[in-house]
Amino acid sequence: MTEFIPPGTRFFDLPSPFPMKRGGALHGARVAFETWGTLNAARDNAILIVTGLSPDAHAASNHGNPEPGWWEPMLGPGKPIDSDRWFVICVNSLGSCKGSTGPASLNPDTGALYRLDFPDLSVEDGADAAAHVVRGLGIAQLACMIGNSMGGMTALALLARHPGLARTHINISGAARALPFSIAIRSLQREAIRLDPDWNHGRYDDERYPESGMRMARKLGVITYRSALEWDGRFGRVRLESDRRDDEDPFGLEFEVESYLEGHARRFVRRFDPNCYLYLSRSMDWFDIGDYCTARSGDSEGNTRAGLASIRVDKALAIGVHTDILFPPQQQEEIADGLRASGADAQFLPLPSPQGHDAFLVDIGRFGPAVAAFLAGL
Amino acid sequence: MTEFIPPGTRFFDLPSPFPMKRGGALHGARVAFETWGTLNAARDNAILIVTGLSPDAHAASNHGNPEPGWWEPMLGPGKPIDSDRWFVICVNSLGSCKGSTGPASLNPDTGALYRLDFPDLSVEDGADAAAHVVRGLGIAQLACMIGNSMGGMTALALLARHPGLARTHINISGAARALPFSIAIRSLQREAIRLDPDWNHGRYDDERYPESGMRMARKLGVITYRSALEWDGRFGRVRLESDRRDDEDPFGLEFEVESYLEGHARRFVRRFDPNCYLYLSRSMDWFDIGDYCTARSGDSEGNTRAGLASIRVDKALAIGVHTDILFPPQQQEEIADGLRASGADAQFLPLPSPQGHDAFLVDIGRFGPAVAAFLAGL
Repeated sequence: MTEFIPPGTRFFDLPSPFPMKRGGALHGARVAFETWGTLNAARDNAILIVTGLSPDAHAASNHGNPEPGWWEPMLGPGKPIDSDRWFVICVNSLGSCKGSTGPASLNPDTGALYRLDFPDLSVEDGADAAAHVVRGLGIAQLACMIGNSMGGMTALALLARHPGLARTHINISGAARALPFSIAIRSLQREAIRLDPDWNHGRYDDERYPESGMRMARKLGVITYRSALEWDGRFGRVRLESDRRDDEDPFGLEFEVESYLEGHARRFVRRFDPNCYLYLSRSMDWFDIGDYCTARSGDSEGNTRAGLASIRVDKALAIGVHTDILFPPQQQEEIADGLRASGADAQFLPLPSPQGHDAFLVDIGRFGPAVAAFLAGL
Repeated sequence: MTEFIPPGTRFFDLPSPFPMKRGGALHGARVAFETWGTLNAARDNAILIVTGLSPDAHAASNHGNPEPGWWEPMLGPGKPIDSDRWFVICVNSLGSCKGSTGPASLNPDTGALYRLDFPDLSVEDGADAAAHVVRGLGIAQLACMIGNSMGGMTALALLARHPGLARTHINISGAARALPFSIAIRSLQREAIRLDPDWNHGRYDDERYPESGMRMARKLGVITYRSALEWDGRFGRVRLESDRRDDEDPFGLEFEVESYLEGHARRFVRRFDPNCYLYLSRSMDWFDIGDYCTARSGDSEGNTRAGLASIRVDKALAIGVHTDILFPPQQQEEIADGLRASGADAQFLPLPSPQGHDAFLVDIGRFGPAVAAFLAGL
């Protein structure tokens, strides 16, 4: 599979070897990133954004790439993350297929793609890689570390493993540990890919590609990224016009919501590498900030609290949405409570967005002011 | 595929032809059922139970079959549905593979299995078939009509199409119409089965059987039948012991919750016919009590209210659970409100069960007293 790298992407070479948390090391690995705004003379106006599973580093339009990014209304001059004031960095996750080294990259030891020879990937590896980028850009301390979804995990890992690298933190629809409902959903997504005969134990190509498995995985993702409440209002029981239906297929698409899922799946399937998907998905299951508490016990919630309490930031904001079933708002509340216990001025902000886990991407009307107010107070 | 018929099952022959709502007719079709208790001389102590997608008619142990049934703690002498007082009938849904005629049955016109030649199946066809059983047993009016999950739809269809056939109604985790989140989940389950090459457009057999597709469908079902809250307490992040893991498989089972899903899937896969699953699943998507309002408009909620208001029962109880994401409690509240608008003494009872949609099967501590109190008041 090819990688999917937006024009204007920049690259940072990681130290070689780059050791991986669960064992093994990468050689000649790199991290894709983009920036917005200007680093000031004091080098104290930098913000790092770490992302969910699928986005690239192109969070918004910039000089290198005028195309709109995945967080376009949130980031830019005069926007909630204001690039007139802040120097903003967004990194593509290590293990992704959008410029950073991952299972779809060439393995320099063999000259072939890594595929399943890529070492076990942890959220922590992505955090360490991002920390290298920050320091490599000459930044000793970030003004703020922002993480969305999986990036909320990456941000906590970075804060725990690199004390002092960020003064403040915004955690958006993130989690301090993976819980069984989310693990179950992700496990089923991975199973859909692995069951596709064309996955072929990771040895697919463009001709023979696990399209059905990726489509299933993406549809299940979209179901859990949005919410029943939003869909009731948006789709109800509306059916497709007869010219958009295949009457020969007795179980074919009939309702608008089925067509919506199909459209999402089609747009995703050939634009994300299946092996990268498997690795990033599994890394989330493994994540537990409780691994960073000093005296781990059988009390999982206690470990989580203790792990969070080991993090030192001045100020933090954890934002969640009541319709999010994948990273439910109790998890952001847990993050705010844990960081407060460590002495941070930490707030939990529940938002009444109907859009579920994806609300931070689309409900800028609610998320924008919340992020802007936090950053304005720094 | 063979059918799966518990010992002691009784059969009722439907009129032949038996017309189907969406067109076509069945010839020589039958409905499997079981009974508990004794019909009194006045023939006014009968209760009918209609089920969710997968159960057979063996709701509890009885003379014909001493094995425990799927609602064993709820039904029997001295139990919440007390067979010392009531004559209880449970029918296997038309279209199922557990004794009633369905896609896995022989088509008398061809001598071969129906498979995809079975006509379109509606929830209403199951309701009409159940009404024939009731009348065939010499019962002009049921004391109570009880429906769970899909059976909650079947019960409403029966009440709307057979006025006067029941004096009262208990709707448990049911719905007056399918909403897009549930349609999306079921659509994905069907897609998993249909994508399995061994489904072979419905022409599988025991040797070549869509096991992977059925396993995926069942796992997704179990995820949506239970709740994140329950699983947090039950599984947390507990991992399998190393002797239950396959270290050769880089994405194999690791967490207890994954093993739980696998176990559920294995127990289901060869015990339910895939084509029957597809037909019953699709029938739920199609169901909308709004079809029974006299002046259908573009206002879907209004149609639902008007459809429910066309039903005549003296008394009704709709029970829901706040952790149910598949048939959320707003849907049972909608049923109670609609039946009250038609003049029924109708109550909505939300229960704080952590077990989600499946709570009625396992949280007998809460559901038992609720059902018992309603029936005691008749």
